[in-house]
Amino acid sequence: MSASSSESVSDEVLVARAFLCRVAEPACVPMWDFVRREGPLVAAAAIRSGDVPDEVAAATAARRASADPEADLEAGARHGMRLVVPESPEWPHFALAALEAAVLRLLPSYRAGSAQRREGGDPVPPLGLWVKGPVNLAAAAVRGAAIVGSRAATAYGEHVTAELSYGLAARGFDIVSGGAYGIDAAAHRAALSAEGQTILVSAGGLDRPYPPGNAALHERVAATGLLVSENPPGAAPHRHRFLTRNRLIASLATGTVVVEAASRSGALNTARHCLLLGRTLMAVPGPVTSPMSAGCHALLRGDTAERTVLVASVEHVLEAIGTAGEGIDMGSDDAATTPDLLRQRIDLLDARARRVFDGLPVRKPAREDELAQRVGLPAVEVIRALPALRLAGLVESTDEGFRLAAAFRKRSPPPRMRVAGPDTATAVNPGPGAPT
Amino acid sequence: MSASSSESVSDEVLVARAFLCRVAEPACVPMWDFVRREGPLVAAAAIRSGDVPDEVAAATAARRASADPEADLEAGARHGMRLVVPESPEWPHFALAALEAAVLRLLPSYRAGSAQRREGGDPVPPLGLWVKGPVNLAAAAVRGAAIVGSRAATAYGEHVTAELSYGLAARGFDIVSGGAYGIDAAAHRAALSAEGQTILVSAGGLDRPYPPGNAALHERVAATGLLVSENPPGAAPHRHRFLTRNRLIASLATGTVVVEAASRSGALNTARHCLLLGRTLMAVPGPVTSPMSAGCHALLRGDTAERTVLVASVEHVLEAIGTAGEGIDMGSDDAATTPDLLRQRIDLLDARARRVFDGLPVRKPAREDELAQRVGLPAVEVIRALPALRLAGLVESTDEGFRLAAAFRKRSPPPRMRVAGPDTATAVNPGPGAPT
Repeated sequence: MSASSSESVSDEVLVARAFLCRVAEPACVPMWDFVRREGPLVAAAAIRSGDVPDEVAAATAARRASADPEADLEAGARHGMRLVVPESPEWPHFALAALEAAVLRLLPSYRAGSAQRREGGDPVPPLGLWVKGPVNLAAAAVRGAAIVGSRAATAYGEHVTAELSYGLAARGFDIVSGGAYGIDAAAHRAALSAEGQTILVSAGGLDRPYPPGNAALHERVAATGLLVSENPPGAAPHRHRFLTRNRLIASLATGTVVVEAASRSGALNTARHCLLLGRTLMAVPGPVTSPMSAGCHALLRGDTAERTVLVASVEHVLEAIGTAGEGIDMGSDDAATTPDLLRQRIDLLDARARRVFDGLPVRKPAREDELAQRVGLPAVEVIRALPALRLAGLVESTDEGFRLAAAFRKRSPPPRMRVAGPDTATAVNPGPGAPT
Repeated sequence: MSASSSESVSDEVLVARAFLCRVAEPACVPMWDFVRREGPLVAAAAIRSGDVPDEVAAATAARRASADPEADLEAGARHGMRLVVPESPEWPHFALAALEAAVLRLLPSYRAGSAQRREGGDPVPPLGLWVKGPVNLAAAAVRGAAIVGSRAATAYGEHVTAELSYGLAARGFDIVSGGAYGIDAAAHRAALSAEGQTILVSAGGLDRPYPPGNAALHERVAATGLLVSENPPGAAPHRHRFLTRNRLIASLATGTVVVEAASRSGALNTARHCLLLGRTLMAVPGPVTSPMSAGCHALLRGDTAERTVLVASVEHVLEAIGTAGEGIDMGSDDAATTPDLLRQRIDLLDARARRVFDGLPVRKPAREDELAQRVGLPAVEVIRALPALRLAGLVESTDEGFRLAAAFRKRSPPPRMRVAGPDTATAVNPGPGAPT
């Protein structure tokens, strides 16, 4: 099954997940709850047979007969996509933990039938993610910065977006956005210019770039970064899918910057998700005479003011989220660093970072060029891998160079060659970017 | 003594206060403390003789022999100024209460010799205020909105200033600023265009308009609004006097809006005073690419962020300070409205507002035109007087028109013809704007 992100996931599970992604619209709380309780295999079979709770039946009635997950997986593979599922090592557990926590808070009211439907979409993890590109989703999502805003951006907005995106990408952040015209496109383009990684989260199938005018941009992103969608190949970018898509943008980033947004901009929906998830929301001010800055000013003024940070430069964003990856999920202070956590972080590394990690000296620091010689990679690749290692708390930077983080010096041996994914205790994770 | 704001202040006190304003630089805590303890007459005589505490001696040594308060009062009168002193009904007790509270907090450390000199000037009330113009300072200061910013303002900054100042002046706010080029001048001019009142707080003597290029603007302000300075006639606008002046701008307004300010702008000193006094600080955002907005963004981002309100429109300012006069010093809720407070508020009214107040019906509301007929004023004058009456909690607005506030209906008779200033239990205060 070449469309899988890892040989470690069984075909059965992949087919079941592909079916679940197809059979209901995204962000359906009863669906997620049902799959969580029954597991993907039982849940998929039950939906096929129609023997499911009313709400799940209602959500799946229209497509349960026609859904063809094998065809979806084949179409995905034809287009270079792979299906990342919770059972695979590439699943961004850390990034999606906040969505999971949010939906768990909602479940009681849903089960009691008293839940209010949220206009902007419920916070609920996806059932699977179609991705395309050479980047490991799990590793990228721990150092993501979302930059979003109006399609009808002004020259000012596009300029500021380019400055922020370029600066953050050059500092090792993966730029997450939605691939639309205006701010989104400026964010992706500047990240590409900086030779950084960028993640484009799409509202429709990845074989249907939207807007069509940005098809070339989508292709460029897929070449060095990552396209992501919870909708299967062929899915049209319906309006409501943009709203549910926005929660993924907010989830896959440690912080979201709204650069320009009119009063009713969709970017404010992403902002709402960002706050709901407890992530850092940032907004760029602009001229008060510009309607395209009105949404940003509303965020900075609103009830949520104490949680919306005014950012006017790359430095401001770094101040707000520069260490967020360390602080929230990837705590690098010794107290929070258990051997289990360290192992999990190592599992999240992509092949390049993993190779650099394996070459790190324990005590005497090594410079980038020395590291490059040790591990047999070009120095530029080593330099690009180091921010992820730093954010994961795996490397220590000294005046003389880099070495393993202090946590490893206290616990020997470091868990060098042991690799364990959540459900794959012994499999080695080559990562999608591994040399073949 | 025609330079007094009221016949009720004795010549002796006026001369003593004029001496105190001349003999030391403004914002001197030991001076204020000494005058507070000894009273102006004893304090002035002691300073003349040199028999004073060391710190007061040091502050007054240079000028105690040469100071000529009679000459200052004559020069002031020649230029149409009057000296407003704490003993006169025009003294803005309400507006300066926050400064007084602030300095009282500082006094122990000053007396212990452990006070740290504040770079931007200590919060301490003035010893007297030279003013010029037809407006009653005490009445104006309860509905003041300060608008300040860079001298080197951009077209954007001047445009936004004009919008805010015009809109606030048209809604009955007195626009307080510093008379400088750029934002200050734009604020004064727009208030004049709106036929509103504007207060220009000067760093030097009121006969020395600064900058000289704004002399015509100073004249226009004096014609319908108010020039204010704590420095006597002839005093040069030294640099440190701008810093101490800024605390008066912040004091005389219920809130301060910083429209444009570079990173080290003097407007940020006014902002600091505003926060120190517990007043509402507002800042207008602008393009992050404009150095002239950097100071505003720093205020909105800084440690004081929760207390700096982002404002992008007149409505935002009204939301922040529209009822501040009612809430802080002029509480209009019944519980806080004692007969004494009501009498004090009536004393603060200027002649026009006083006339409208006297014509207010107790029960059956009257429309503006009916009120105009009752009191024999043009309707437009009645309309302009009503905001001050409303802010003072003296008038109640209903669907059918205006009437005396509810507090008066509970306590009869309303203190109609009794007028009492702090030290003038029986004198009638004609107010500087009274018809002669």
